[in-house]
Amino acid sequence: MPNTHPTPVRLEARDAPGQPPVTPELVELYQGFEEEMLIPLWYDIGNLMPFHPISKAAPHMWSWKNLIKLAEKAGEIVAVGRGGERRAIALANPTLGGRPYATPTLWAAIQYLCPEEVAPYHRHTQNAFRFVVEGEGVWTVVNSDPVPMRRGDFLPQGGWAWHAHQNPSQHSMAWIDGLDIPFQYEVEATFFEFGPEELDAKETPDVSRAEMLWGRAGLTPLNFVGPTPKSPLLAYRWEFTDAALRDQLQLEKAGHQVTVEPGHAAVRYTNPNNGLDVLPTIRTEFHRIAAGAETAPLKETGSSVFQVFDGTGTITVGDSLWNVERGDMFVVPSWVPFSVKSDAGQDGSDSGHLDLFRFSDSPILEKLDLARVEVEKN
Amino acid sequence: MPNTHPTPVRLEARDAPGQPPVTPELVELYQGFEEEMLIPLWYDIGNLMPFHPISKAAPHMWSWKNLIKLAEKAGEIVAVGRGGERRAIALANPTLGGRPYATPTLWAAIQYLCPEEVAPYHRHTQNAFRFVVEGEGVWTVVNSDPVPMRRGDFLPQGGWAWHAHQNPSQHSMAWIDGLDIPFQYEVEATFFEFGPEELDAKETPDVSRAEMLWGRAGLTPLNFVGPTPKSPLLAYRWEFTDAALRDQLQLEKAGHQVTVEPGHAAVRYTNPNNGLDVLPTIRTEFHRIAAGAETAPLKETGSSVFQVFDGTGTITVGDSLWNVERGDMFVVPSWVPFSVKSDAGQDGSDSGHLDLFRFSDSPILEKLDLARVEVEKN
Amino acid sequence: MPNTHPTPVRLEARDAPGQPPVTPELVELYQGFEEEMLIPLWYDIGNLMPFHPISKAAPHMWSWKNLIKLAEKAGEIVAVGRGGERRAIALANPTLGGRPYATPTLWAAIQYLCPEEVAPYHRHTQNAFRFVVEGEGVWTVVNSDPVPMRRGDFLPQGGWAWHAHQNPSQHSMAWIDGLDIPFQYEVEATFFEFGPEELDAKETPDVSRAEMLWGRAGLTPLNFVGPTPKSPLLAYRWEFTDAALRDQLQLEKAGHQVTVEPGHAAVRYTNPNNGLDVLPTIRTEFHRIAAGAETAPLKETGSSVFQVFDGTGTITVGDSLWNVERGDMFVVPSWVPFSVKSDAGQDGSDSGHLDLFRFSDSPILEKLDLARVEVEKN
Amino acid sequence: MPNTHPTPVRLEARDAPGQPPVTPELVELYQGFEEEMLIPLWYDIGNLMPFHPISKAAPHMWSWKNLIKLAEKAGEIVAVGRGGERRAIALANPTLGGRPYATPTLWAAIQYLCPEEVAPYHRHTQNAFRFVVEGEGVWTVVNSDPVPMRRGDFLPQGGWAWHAHQNPSQHSMAWIDGLDIPFQYEVEATFFEFGPEELDAKETPDVSRAEMLWGRAGLTPLNFVGPTPKSPLLAYRWEFTDAALRDQLQLEKAGHQVTVEPGHAAVRYTNPNNGLDVLPTIRTEFHRIAAGAETAPLKETGSSVFQVFDGTGTITVGDSLWNVERGDMFVVPSWVPFSVKSDAGQDGSDSGHLDLFRFSDSPILEKLDLARVEVEKN
Repeated sequence: MPNTHPTPVRLEARDAPGQPPVTPELVELYQGFEEEMLIPLWYDIGNLMPFHPISKAAPHMWSWKNLIKLAEKAGEIVAVGRGGERRAIALANPTLGGRPYATPTLWAAIQYLCPEEVAPYHRHTQNAFRFVVEGEGVWTVVNSDPVPMRRGDFLPQGGWAWHAHQNPSQHSMAWIDGLDIPFQYEVEATFFEFGPEELDAKETPDVSRAEMLWGRAGLTPLNFVGPTPKSPLLAYRWEFTDAALRDQLQLEKAGHQVTVEPGHAAVRYTNPNNGLDVLPTIRTEFHRIAAGAETAPLKETGSSVFQVFDGTGTITVGDSLWNVERGDMFVVPSWVPFSVKSDAGQDGSDSGHLDLFRFSDSPILEKLDLARVEVEKN
Repeated sequence: MPNTHPTPVRLEARDAPGQPPVTPELVELYQGFEEEMLIPLWYDIGNLMPFHPISKAAPHMWSWKNLIKLAEKAGEIVAVGRGGERRAIALANPTLGGRPYATPTLWAAIQYLCPEEVAPYHRHTQNAFRFVVEGEGVWTVVNSDPVPMRRGDFLPQGGWAWHAHQNPSQHSMAWIDGLDIPFQYEVEATFFEFGPEELDAKETPDVSRAEMLWGRAGLTPLNFVGPTPKSPLLAYRWEFTDAALRDQLQLEKAGHQVTVEPGHAAVRYTNPNNGLDVLPTIRTEFHRIAAGAETAPLKETGSSVFQVFDGTGTITVGDSLWNVERGDMFVVPSWVPFSVKSDAGQDGSDSGHLDLFRFSDSPILEKLDLARVEVEKN
Repeated sequence: MPNTHPTPVRLEARDAPGQPPVTPELVELYQGFEEEMLIPLWYDIGNLMPFHPISKAAPHMWSWKNLIKLAEKAGEIVAVGRGGERRAIALANPTLGGRPYATPTLWAAIQYLCPEEVAPYHRHTQNAFRFVVEGEGVWTVVNSDPVPMRRGDFLPQGGWAWHAHQNPSQHSMAWIDGLDIPFQYEVEATFFEFGPEELDAKETPDVSRAEMLWGRAGLTPLNFVGPTPKSPLLAYRWEFTDAALRDQLQLEKAGHQVTVEPGHAAVRYTNPNNGLDVLPTIRTEFHRIAAGAETAPLKETGSSVFQVFDGTGTITVGDSLWNVERGDMFVVPSWVPFSVKSDAGQDGSDSGHLDLFRFSDSPILEKLDLARVEVEKN
Repeated sequence: MPNTHPTPVRLEARDAPGQPPVTPELVELYQGFEEEMLIPLWYDIGNLMPFHPISKAAPHMWSWKNLIKLAEKAGEIVAVGRGGERRAIALANPTLGGRPYATPTLWAAIQYLCPEEVAPYHRHTQNAFRFVVEGEGVWTVVNSDPVPMRRGDFLPQGGWAWHAHQNPSQHSMAWIDGLDIPFQYEVEATFFEFGPEELDAKETPDVSRAEMLWGRAGLTPLNFVGPTPKSPLLAYRWEFTDAALRDQLQLEKAGHQVTVEPGHAAVRYTNPNNGLDVLPTIRTEFHRIAAGAETAPLKETGSSVFQVFDGTGTITVGDSLWNVERGDMFVVPSWVPFSVKSDAGQDGSDSGHLDLFRFSDSPILEKLDLARVEVEKN
C-alpha cells in the first residue's frame, strides 16, 4: 500500500520579517511543499525553537473546596468498576486544548472512593502515585500487598505493577493521583492490562509488607539487594515526613545550614535502592515554609503541580498570584518564575507554617541533559 | 492576578459503553467539571491509556527525487541567513496536524546550501545531527572546528554547541538534519541563541580537530578524560562505517555470529566517552541488508526515521509497503511492525545490498524505563 | 642516583615437577636473574596463580570474655591520647605473620574508653565503623556532630572525616572497630592527620544531626541531594535493625519469600544516597538465624569478620567448628566454606535466635569484577 | 575443631615516645595480648597509619639490554609448555622481599617465544596485557581469535578469557606482560584453569576478529551492544597510537590546548563499551614527550610501571635519576614524585621525542575513592 493520507500541510506565503519575499515562485514552491508534506524551518522557527521555553500551559489554581464538592457528587452518581476503572477527575490546564493535562507532561486528579467500593486490579506503564491531603480508610493493593492510606502519606506506584484500591470503611475517602499520562501519550510507550476481577488481598493491616521490608533508612533486605528503577517502598508515612521537616527547621535554628534557604525545609522522596527519584519520570517532594518566610523566585525547565497540605499563604507564578489553603492545587509551567510566601502566624493553624506537596517532571529533563534552573533576579 | 482563562473543557454526557447513564445529574456534574476545568478519567480512558501504543503518526515515505527537486528550487528563491537561519525543509507526518514533525518526537529535514553561502552561527538545546546521502563541499563549523561533510558521513551535534555551515565550493550541497525539536517542544526545555555574525574559522581542512583527537578506537586523549553526555567526535566517516559493515558480513560468512540476524549487519554510532548513544535523546544507526536478505518484523516503542543510503528494496511498515531507492526517507511509528527486504542483486548497484541510515528516540525511552521490543509473530 | 639496592632475589635450581632440568646453564641463568632482580613465572606459578583462592589467613575465633578482660586491664594501665590515639586492640590472625590483621584486608579491634576520657580528633583515609555489642555512654564526634553509641548500634565512619570519641559517663565502655587498614596499607593510599586538641562539640544529645537529616527511609534532605561515596547517616540504631529482622521472619512465617533462606533473615547496611554499601571498601550486614535453623555452606572470594551479637550456636569455617556466645568474634577467610547453626531455644536467651554482625571486603571485589560465590555441595 | 595455631604475636614493652611506661603490669598485659593473638593500635600506629603513603616498593630501573639477553638465554635452555605455562620473567622490586612483584599490586615480565613454539591455552582471573617494544611474528589467540602482535601494539587480556600464544615464524620474539597478580594474590580472588592442549585456531590473519568488530571509533556492532567490564577490542595498533600522539602535538603547535602540558601528549587506552579503563584493575597509557620537553613532578597514590618505547631521556623518581633508552623499564612507587625529561634532539633518534608506555593500578584506587594526585611544588 502506497502513501494515501491527504496532506495536512498549509503554507501561506506572507510578507513578514524573516520571511522570503512573496513572489509567484514562492507561492509555487509552497504548493510543492504542501503536496510533498514538507514545512520549511524558516516558516515558523520562532515558535519551534524559541529563545527560552514558552509553555503551552498556563499557571492555574484549583480550589480544593470545589474539587471535593464535585468529587462527592461524582461519588453519588458515577459507579466505579471495570471500564472506567477509577473515579478520578483530572485537572485540565486552561491552555492545553481541553485535554485532561495539568501540564504538558503530568496528569493530576482527585480520586474518590465510596464506602465498600473497590477500584479493580489493573496495571499500566504509566508511573503513578497517590498523596492524601485528608481522610483515611482506603487500602491500595499493590501486587497483593495492601497498603493503608492516611492523611499526609505519599504512595508511589511504579509503572506496570498490578494495583487496586479498596475502601472497607464506612466513609468515603478522597486523595490525589499523579501520573505521567501526557508524557507517555506523547512518546507513545503506553501499555495497559486488566487484572483479575476479584481482589486477592482483602486484609487491612496497619503497615504494608513493603514498609516492613524497606521502611527503615539504610537497611536493605539482603534477599532483595540490587538496583530497581522504581521504589520498592510503597508508603512514605506522614509522621516521618513531618518529623524530617521539623528537624530541619530545628537544626536551622541551632545554626546549621541544612535548609534550602532560610525558613524553607524540604525533602525529596527517594528510592531506597538507589537514592534517586521514586519514579523514573516523576519527582516528588515535600516543602515546608516557616511562618512569615518567603522563597526566592525560581525558574526551572519542566513543569510542576503542587498541593497545599496545610497552612495558608500566597503563591506567585509569573503574573498569577493566589491565596491558598488546605487542598488547593496549582500548576507551575516551565520557565515561569515561582515563589511562595507563608502567612505569618495570623493564619490560625496550629502549625504556623505552609506545607506543600510537589510533583514534577524533572527526572525526564535531568536524565536527558535538559534541566536548567535559575534564580530570578529581583 | 486570579485565574482568568476561559475553560477549554467540553464534556458531553453520552450513552456509550463504559460511560455512566445519561441523567440530568450527570449533565449537571459535567457542567461543574467544565466550569472547574476538570475531566474525569472514565470519559476517555481508552484514548489516554490504550492497551498498547497507537501512534498519532502514520507510516509515510518521502521520495528523495521530490525532496531534492524542491530543495533546489528553494535554493534559487529563498536566501539563507540570520532569522530563518537554515534552508532546512522538514518532513511533516500526514497525521500530526500539519506540524513539521516526522514523528511525535523527531524532526527530519533536507538542508540545502548554495555555493559560497554561509548558514550563520547559532546554538540551541535541541540535539542535532547531519547525515550526507550525496555530494560534498560543505564544512560544518562546531565551536570553531571546521568539519568537512561528504557522502556517507554522519555528524552529530550535541545540544548547546555553537555551529554554522559554510559552502566554499562552487556547487550546491544537500544533506539531512535530524533533531529532537518536537520532543523538546513538548517537554519545554528549549533555549536558542544567535552567535557572532562572522564565521571565526574559514579553513577547509580534510579532517576536523575532533577527529584528530577522538577518531581512533579506544584512544582517549588524556587531557580530556572524563564523561560527557554528548559525543566529542564530530564526524563518523563513511569509509569506517562501510568497512565495519563489510567486515560483519564477511565474519558472518566465515561462520561467526556477529550480525543482528542472517544477512543483516548493523552498527550503532556511539560516544567514545561512554559507549552510549551519541546524543542524549537520539539514537543513530546504520544497517546493511545483504542482497536477498529480509529482516524479521519488529515492533518497538518509540519512533524512527530512515533514509536509504544505497541499493533498493521493499519496506513494510504496518500496512504500508514501499519500493525504495537512494535518498528515500520513511517513518516507522511506535509499535508498528517494520521489516526490510533487500532486492536480490537485480538492482544493478555495485553493492548488491540495501544500506539504511536510521535515527530514533530510543534513548528517551530506555532512560525512562519505557523501552519495549517485540518480534512480530508471523 | 642509580639503582643501589642489593638484590633480594634468591633462586635455587631444583629438581622438581614443572621445573627445568638442573644444569650448569640453568644455575648460571638463575644467577643472572638474581643479579638483575628477576624471577621467572615457572619458578613458583602454583603459589602465585593457584587454581582457586588459598587464603593466607586462618579461620580463627576470639572469645569476647578474654577480649573484654584484656581491654579492661589496658584501661587501667594505658592512657588514651595523642600519639597512640586510641585504646584499640586488634585481632591478629594466627597465620598473617604477627601483623594486626584479622584478614588480609580487614582490621578488627576492641576499643575501650574509661570514664571521662576523650580519644582525640584525627582523620585518615581508612574507612572505619564502630559496632556496639554491649554498654553505652560514649559519643563519637564526627565533624562536630556528637553521635551516641548504644548496644546494637552500627556507626559508619567514611574515610577522611574528622572524628573523636568522648565518654562523659561514669562507667567504661567497649565496642568494636572495623577498618580497611591492611588493604590500604597494601595499595599504599593512606593519609592521616591530627585534629584540634580540644573537642569542639561536647553535647550529649540522644540523636545525632546525621540521624535527624538522614534517618528516615526514602526522605532525602533537598539541600543535600546528590551522590556521596560514603554514607551521610552516622548511626544505624539497633531498634530498627532488630525490627527489620523480626519483620522478615514474621513475613516468612506468613508465607512470603523474603529471607535469604529458611530461618535466615538479614539486612545490609546501605548508604541512603545510592543504596550501595555504607563504605567504599567495607560491606556490613546483620544476620539473624532463627532457633534451630542452619545456613547452607557458602564459599566467597574475599574475607569476613563476624561478631556474635546475641544467642548461641555453632559456627563451621572449613575444618574449624566453634560454639559461640555473645561478643565472640571470628574470621572467615576467602573461599573457605562457612555455615552457622543456631542453638534450638535451649540457649536460655529471650530471643531464641542467633544474631550475627558481619563485615567483609566484598565491595572491593565487586567493583573490580572479582567477586565469586558458590554454595558448597554436601 | 577449636583454634589450634600457635600465636604469631610478639610484643615487646619498650621505652619509646608514644608508648606506655614499661611496668610489670604492661609486660603482663602484652603477654596476655600475645596469648590471645592481639596487637594494640598504639604499638605501631605510625607504620600502619602513616601521614602519607610510604611505599614498600623502591624506585628501580631494569635495562632492556640485560632483560633481553637473559630472556634469550632462557629461550635456549627452558622449554615452554604445560606446567610452567609461559617463558615469562618477572621484575622483582628490590624492596618487596624477593617476590616477583614490580610494585605491591603489579606484576611485569618479559615474555619470550622461540620459533614454532606454542604457549598453551589457559585462563585466569588475573587481568593481563601484552605490549610489544620490538619484533613481531607471534599471534595471541584469545577465545579462538588469533591476534597478531607487532612493535608498538598494545593487547589487553581481560581476566577469565582463554588464551594461548603461538609463534609460527622462524625467529624468536619478546614482549612485556603486565598483570595484577600481586593485587589478586593479596585480596585472594584468583582462579586458574588449564585449557585444551591443542590450539584451535592456527590461522595467522593480519587483523583479529576483535579489530574487525570493534576497531573503528564510535561504531558499536549492534549485536554486541551492552556494557562489558573488559574491553572487547583485543589489539590497539601502533599506527593509531602514534598518529593520535602526533596529532596532539600538531594541534598544540597550532595553538590548541589539547596536551597534558606543553610538549606532553598522551592517550589512555579505553574500553569502547564504556570509555573507561581497558581492564578493571589496570590503567594503561602511552605518553610522548617532545624533544627537550619536561614534565611537572607528580605524586599519585598507587604505583606504575613504565617501558621506554623510543627515544632517550632522563627519568626522575624521588631520589633516583636514570638515563633511559628503548626497552628500559622502571617503577614509580606510590606517592613518590616522578618527572621525565626528553633528550633534546641530540639523541640521534628519528623521532626526536621520548615515547613511554605506562601501566598502573589507578582504577583500583579510583573505584574505591582512594585516588589522590598532587603536582610537586618546586
